[in-house]
Amino acid sequence: MLKVGVVGASGYVGGETLRLLVNHPDVEISMVTSRQHVGEYLHRIQPSLKGFTDLTFSELDYDKLTDKCDVVFTAVPHGTATEIVKALYDRGIKIIDLSADYRLHNQEAYDKWYGWEHPHPDYLAKSVFGVPELHREQIKKAQLVSCPGCMAVTSMLALAPLIRNDIIDTEHIIVDSKIGSSGAGSGSGTAHAMRAGVIRPYKPAKHRHTGEIEQELSEIAGKKIRVSMSPHAVDVVRGILCTNHTFLKKDIEEKELWKLYRQAYGEEKFIRLIRDKKGLYKFPDPKFLVGSNFCDIGFDIDEDNNRLIAMSASDNLMKGAAGSAIQNMNVMCGFDEMDGLRYTPLTPV
Amino acid sequence: MLKVGVVGASGYVGGETLRLLVNHPDVEISMVTSRQHVGEYLHRIQPSLKGFTDLTFSELDYDKLTDKCDVVFTAVPHGTATEIVKALYDRGIKIIDLSADYRLHNQEAYDKWYGWEHPHPDYLAKSVFGVPELHREQIKKAQLVSCPGCMAVTSMLALAPLIRNDIIDTEHIIVDSKIGSSGAGSGSGTAHAMRAGVIRPYKPAKHRHTGEIEQELSEIAGKKIRVSMSPHAVDVVRGILCTNHTFLKKDIEEKELWKLYRQAYGEEKFIRLIRDKKGLYKFPDPKFLVGSNFCDIGFDIDEDNNRLIAMSASDNLMKGAAGSAIQNMNVMCGFDEMDGLRYTPLTPV
Amino acid sequence: MLKVGVVGASGYVGGETLRLLVNHPDVEISMVTSRQHVGEYLHRIQPSLKGFTDLTFSELDYDKLTDKCDVVFTAVPHGTATEIVKALYDRGIKIIDLSADYRLHNQEAYDKWYGWEHPHPDYLAKSVFGVPELHREQIKKAQLVSCPGCMAVTSMLALAPLIRNDIIDTEHIIVDSKIGSSGAGSGSGTAHAMRAGVIRPYKPAKHRHTGEIEQELSEIAGKKIRVSMSPHAVDVVRGILCTNHTFLKKDIEEKELWKLYRQAYGEEKFIRLIRDKKGLYKFPDPKFLVGSNFCDIGFDIDEDNNRLIAMSASDNLMKGAAGSAIQNMNVMCGFDEMDGLRYTPLTPV
Amino acid sequence: MLKVGVVGASGYVGGETLRLLVNHPDVEISMVTSRQHVGEYLHRIQPSLKGFTDLTFSELDYDKLTDKCDVVFTAVPHGTATEIVKALYDRGIKIIDLSADYRLHNQEAYDKWYGWEHPHPDYLAKSVFGVPELHREQIKKAQLVSCPGCMAVTSMLALAPLIRNDIIDTEHIIVDSKIGSSGAGSGSGTAHAMRAGVIRPYKPAKHRHTGEIEQELSEIAGKKIRVSMSPHAVDVVRGILCTNHTFLKKDIEEKELWKLYRQAYGEEKFIRLIRDKKGLYKFPDPKFLVGSNFCDIGFDIDEDNNRLIAMSASDNLMKGAAGSAIQNMNVMCGFDEMDGLRYTPLTPV
Repeated sequence: MLKVGVVGASGYVGGETLRLLVNHPDVEISMVTSRQHVGEYLHRIQPSLKGFTDLTFSELDYDKLTDKCDVVFTAVPHGTATEIVKALYDRGIKIIDLSADYRLHNQEAYDKWYGWEHPHPDYLAKSVFGVPELHREQIKKAQLVSCPGCMAVTSMLALAPLIRNDIIDTEHIIVDSKIGSSGAGSGSGTAHAMRAGVIRPYKPAKHRHTGEIEQELSEIAGKKIRVSMSPHAVDVVRGILCTNHTFLKKDIEEKELWKLYRQAYGEEKFIRLIRDKKGLYKFPDPKFLVGSNFCDIGFDIDEDNNRLIAMSASDNLMKGAAGSAIQNMNVMCGFDEMDGLRYTPLTPV
Repeated sequence: MLKVGVVGASGYVGGETLRLLVNHPDVEISMVTSRQHVGEYLHRIQPSLKGFTDLTFSELDYDKLTDKCDVVFTAVPHGTATEIVKALYDRGIKIIDLSADYRLHNQEAYDKWYGWEHPHPDYLAKSVFGVPELHREQIKKAQLVSCPGCMAVTSMLALAPLIRNDIIDTEHIIVDSKIGSSGAGSGSGTAHAMRAGVIRPYKPAKHRHTGEIEQELSEIAGKKIRVSMSPHAVDVVRGILCTNHTFLKKDIEEKELWKLYRQAYGEEKFIRLIRDKKGLYKFPDPKFLVGSNFCDIGFDIDEDNNRLIAMSASDNLMKGAAGSAIQNMNVMCGFDEMDGLRYTPLTPV
Repeated sequence: MLKVGVVGASGYVGGETLRLLVNHPDVEISMVTSRQHVGEYLHRIQPSLKGFTDLTFSELDYDKLTDKCDVVFTAVPHGTATEIVKALYDRGIKIIDLSADYRLHNQEAYDKWYGWEHPHPDYLAKSVFGVPELHREQIKKAQLVSCPGCMAVTSMLALAPLIRNDIIDTEHIIVDSKIGSSGAGSGSGTAHAMRAGVIRPYKPAKHRHTGEIEQELSEIAGKKIRVSMSPHAVDVVRGILCTNHTFLKKDIEEKELWKLYRQAYGEEKFIRLIRDKKGLYKFPDPKFLVGSNFCDIGFDIDEDNNRLIAMSASDNLMKGAAGSAIQNMNVMCGFDEMDGLRYTPLTPV
Repeated sequence: MLKVGVVGASGYVGGETLRLLVNHPDVEISMVTSRQHVGEYLHRIQPSLKGFTDLTFSELDYDKLTDKCDVVFTAVPHGTATEIVKALYDRGIKIIDLSADYRLHNQEAYDKWYGWEHPHPDYLAKSVFGVPELHREQIKKAQLVSCPGCMAVTSMLALAPLIRNDIIDTEHIIVDSKIGSSGAGSGSGTAHAMRAGVIRPYKPAKHRHTGEIEQELSEIAGKKIRVSMSPHAVDVVRGILCTNHTFLKKDIEEKELWKLYRQAYGEEKFIRLIRDKKGLYKFPDPKFLVGSNFCDIGFDIDEDNNRLIAMSASDNLMKGAAGSAIQNMNVMCGFDEMDGLRYTPLTPV
C-alpha cells in the first residue's frame, strides 16, 4: 500500500482529496496536517469522513512527512505552497501540488498573472503540468506534479484539439466560464444570503487561470496563443461550465469535428463526448457530473457566424482539483488510472 | 383612470403584469382572460394577488375587451398572439403585446428565427419595437407596441452605444447569456430536481432572440450586424446576465467609454451604470435587481486582447417582460414613465 | 413629511427598512448612521438603493439625530441597542427598535433567554411590544416600540387565537420553524458552499424567540404558557414557516376554527387566511410572500391524534422585521397602516 | 456474480439503484426494463451512467426476468407493483420492492393510508419490512423484501430506541419532516420556478408514511402507537430531516440517552450518532449525507418542557430508497452489508 499524506487537509480541496483517498484501493493515509486544527479529529472538520477514519491533524513537519509518506498532496492556499513544495522536493518525496504555485513555467508568468515574484523559479522547470490527457508520459516520470486550475483544465481540454488541428481563428478565443461557490475555497466564501441567486461576473478580464490556458495551448500550437477569459459565479456549490466561443478558419463539417475529438480523447477514461439531439443531456452540464472525475465535452456550430461553440463541464473539486490529483497519483505510481475514481456522477442532486 | 385588460393572465408574465397594475396609480384593471380558468378567482392562480383584487377570469371576447378596456396587454404564448393582436388592432384599441409575434419587422425573419409563416405580415409594420430607450418617440404615437424578448433587450441596451459610436469589430460580437427558470414560462418548466443546480447550455447557436438583437443593432448601424448568441440556464428563478464580449476597433480609454454610456443613458430612469472598484457591486448582477425595472450596465476592458466586456443585467419578468410593458404603457398614454414602476430591487433575496 | 433616521443602516434589516422608507409617501429620510461606513454613499453598501437616494452614512450622534429626526429606527445587533435606545428615549424622540433589547418585559427574562443583565431594566416597561394585531392601541400612544423577533411574531399570530379561545392543550405546544439565511444578519452568515442545501437544526431547545412567544401568549392566557420551539435553517434567503403543532382540548369543527381566525384577524390588513383545497396555494408558504408584509395563516386537522397544525408564514425581513417596523411607525404617527407597505409578494422568485 | 434486474429503471429511484449496482463488486446487471423507453440506451435516460454500461431498456417480461436474474428490484410507482411483485414471487425469484405496495402488513392499512384495496392481501405476510437495523434476521431468509418509505425509515430509526425503552409519552409524538424535490419522483415534480425557495407544508395530517412508522413502532412497543407526522417540501434536491419531537415520561440524563442509542446502533454500519458541542456538525443535517447510505441521528433536550428532540437525517434516494435496497440485497444474499455502499457523503455539494 502506498503511504500518502495531505498537507492542508481542512479545506474543501483537502477534504475532497481525503474523501477519495479513504476509499482508494492502493493507498493508506499516513498523515494529515492543518495548522489551526492540530490534535483535532479529522472528521470534526470534515464531517463527511466520520466513520471512515480516526486520523487526527498533525503539525506540518517535513521530516515526519518524509518519514511516513511516499506521496504528499499539498492543498494549501495559493502563494503558501512555494516553500512547502520545495522542502518536500529536496527531501526526495513525490509531491502532487493542488495550489497554483508550480503551474506556470516561468517567473514572468507569475509576475503577470499573480503579481508576485516566485521565490524558487528554478524549481518551476521541475514541475509537470498535471493533465494526464496532455502530459501523461511526463507525469509518469515526475517527482512533482502541479494540478491545474479548475477552470483552466476544463477549458483547455475542449480547446486543445481545435488548436492542435489548427482549425480556429486564434485571435478570437473567448472562454466564458460559470462556476460554483466551492471554487472560492473554504476560507473565503461569501455568506449565503449574498451569494445565493447571483449571476456575478468576477474578473471579466485578466483572471489568473488565463495564464495556464495560454501556456498549454501555446505549447500545443507552437506559437503564442491568447485567450479571452471571463468567469462568472452562479448558484451551485460544485460545477464548472466553460463555454468556449471560437471562430472556424474554414468550413468544416460536424462529423469531422467529432472525429477530431474522438481522435484526441477516444481512449481517455475521464473524458466523455456529449452529443444528443433529444433527451435530457444534449450538451455538457456540470449538473450531470457531480462527484465524478469526468470532463464532458460537446459542441454546437453557428453557421451564420462560422462560430464553433465548444462546451466543457466538470466538477471543480474533482477533475478541477482532487480528482485530477488522484488521477495524477495513479499515473505517477503505476496504478490503474481509474483506481479510486470509479464514481458515477450523482444524479439528481 | 385608464381601463386595462390582460389577455393570458394565468402565466408568469401575465401575473407579473397584474402585480404591477394592481398598484399602478393611473389605471384600473377591467378584465382578465384565461381559457382554462374562466370563472375562477384570479388569486387562486396568482396567489400573490390575494387581497389585492377580487377579479375573476373571463373568456377571451374581443367585443367585451374593446368595450371595457382602453389598453390591452396580450401575454399569451408565442405563435398564439397573431390573431388576437390583429383582432384587437382592427377594433382600434391600444395593444401592448408580450409575445414575440409582432417583434420582427418582416416575414423572412419569422421564417428564419421561428420557422413559421406569419399570417399577417402586413401588420408587422404597424408594430413598434417596445424599448423606450431606443424608440420612445415612436412608442408615444403607437397603437401597437411589441415588448422585446428578455435576453434581447438586456443585451441590446449594452451593445447599442457601442454600435452607434462604431467602436467595435462587428464581425465578432458574442452574447453569452445566463437566465433563470421563470424565463421558460409557466407552461414549460423543467421539474425542480432536474433543473436545480444546472449550468445548462441551450440553443448555443440560433436562439430566436438573436433575430431581435440583430434587427435593432442593424437599424442603429445602418448595415447588417450579426450577433453570436448563446444562452444558458442557471439556478435562479428571476434574472438575466448578458456578457457581451466585443473587440475594440482601436484603443479607447475607459473614461471615454463611460462617457459614451452616459451620453446614451444619462437621462434614462431605468438604466443604471454600474462602476465600482470595491464594495459588493462592481459589475451588473441580476441578484441586485430582483423585482425592479432596471437594466444595469457596466463593462471591463481586457487590454491583452483589446476586448471590451459589456455586461448587462435585468429581472427577466420586469425589464425583460412586464416592467417593459408597463413602461411602454406609460409612454403611450402620457403618464410619468416611472409610474407604477418605482420599485427598488429586493435585496437580499 | 415625517423626518426619520436609521441607526445601523448597513445590515439587512437596516437596508430593508430603507427600501421601504425611500418609497413611503409620508416620510423623508434625514439621517442614516453606520460606524464602519461614515462618509460613504449609502448605495455602495446597499446597492439596491442606487438611484433612490444620495444619502451618505453619518456617525451616531444623539444630538444630531434628535435635531434632524422625528422618529428613529434602531437596527443594530442585539445587545448593542440598550444604550442607544435609552439615550434617544431620554431626549424625547420616538424610537422603533429592531433589536431584541427592549422586547422582554423584565430583567429575569433577559437572564434566562439572553444570558445577560439588562443595564436599564426600568426602561423595559416603557417599551410596547410591536405587534399591532395584538397591541395596536398601546402602540398608538407609545414613545418606544420594540419590534418582535421574526419567528416569534410569525408563530404567535397563529397561536394567539387558539390561546385566547382556550381550545388547545397548553402543555404540548410545539413550534417547528424553518428560516432562510437572511435571518442570520449581514454580519454572521455561513459561506454559501456550507449553507446551500442545508436542512439544519439550530438551537432545537431554548431558542431566544421562545421567550417572546411565551411572554405574549401568557399575557393573552392570563397564565404561564410554555412553548417548545425548534428552528431550522433551510435553503432560502428570505422566508419563515412556523409549523405550530397543537393538540385540541375537545372536538371542534373546522368551520368553527376558521370562524375563530376570522374573528381575530378579519379586519387585519396584513394577515391573510389561507385555505384552498386545490390550486397552488393550499397552506401558508413564504415562497408566496417574498417582499410583502403579510403573515399568512392556515391550518389542518389530524383527527387521528386530535392535533391541530396551525401554519404561519412570513418574509422575515418584512413582517419579521422592517415591515413590522414601518407598520408600527404608521400606527404611532397616525398614518394609514398600509402606507408604504402596499407590496404584493413577488412571484415566482 | 449475482445477476440482477431492475424493473422501472427510468425514474430517480431506479437510476440511483443502477448507480450503485454498476459499481457493486458482487453483481452484474442482466436486464433493465422501462415501458416508455424499450430499445433505448439506458444512459440516454440516466445520463450519469454514460461510460458505465451499454445496457438498453427491455420490455417487462416475467419469463425473461426469471431466466436472466437472481434478484429483481422493482422501482415502479406506488400501486403499480402489486401485480409485478406477485408474478415474480410466484416464479420463485427474489424481489426487492421499492414501491409502497408490500410495506404494510394488512389490507385495512392500505384502505386507511392509500385508499385502495390491495389485490393480493395474502401476499402481504410474505413480505419483510426492509430495515436491516430492525429486521435483519428476517431479511436474511426473505424472498420478498419491501423497502421502507424515505421519511418513514428516517424517522423510525430515531424513534425506535425511545419506544423500545419506554421512555417517552406515546400520546404526543410529532414527526416534523423536511424533504427535497427528488422525493417526488421523476414523474411528478413541480417546475423549478414554482418549487425553488419553497418551505411548503404538504399533507400536514394523514401522510401515508405515517402508516409505516406506526406499524413498526407498534410492533416494537407491543401496543398501538400513534404518530403525528407533517412533511414539508424545502429547496434541496436530495435530503430528509426528521425532527421527532417527543416528551420524556420522566427525567433522564443526557448520557443515559446516548447509552440507549449506542446500545441500539453501536454495531450498525449505516447509522452514525451525531454529537458535537462545537464545529460544523452538531446535529444531523442531510447536507452532510448526500450520496451516502447513512442515517445520522442525534438529539437535544429541552428541560423546560421535558421535551426530547430526536433528529434524524438521510439521503432520500439512498438510505431512503436505493441504498436501503442494496443493503437489503446484501443481507439477503449473504454479502458484506457494506458492499457497494462504501460511499462517503459528498461535501460540500
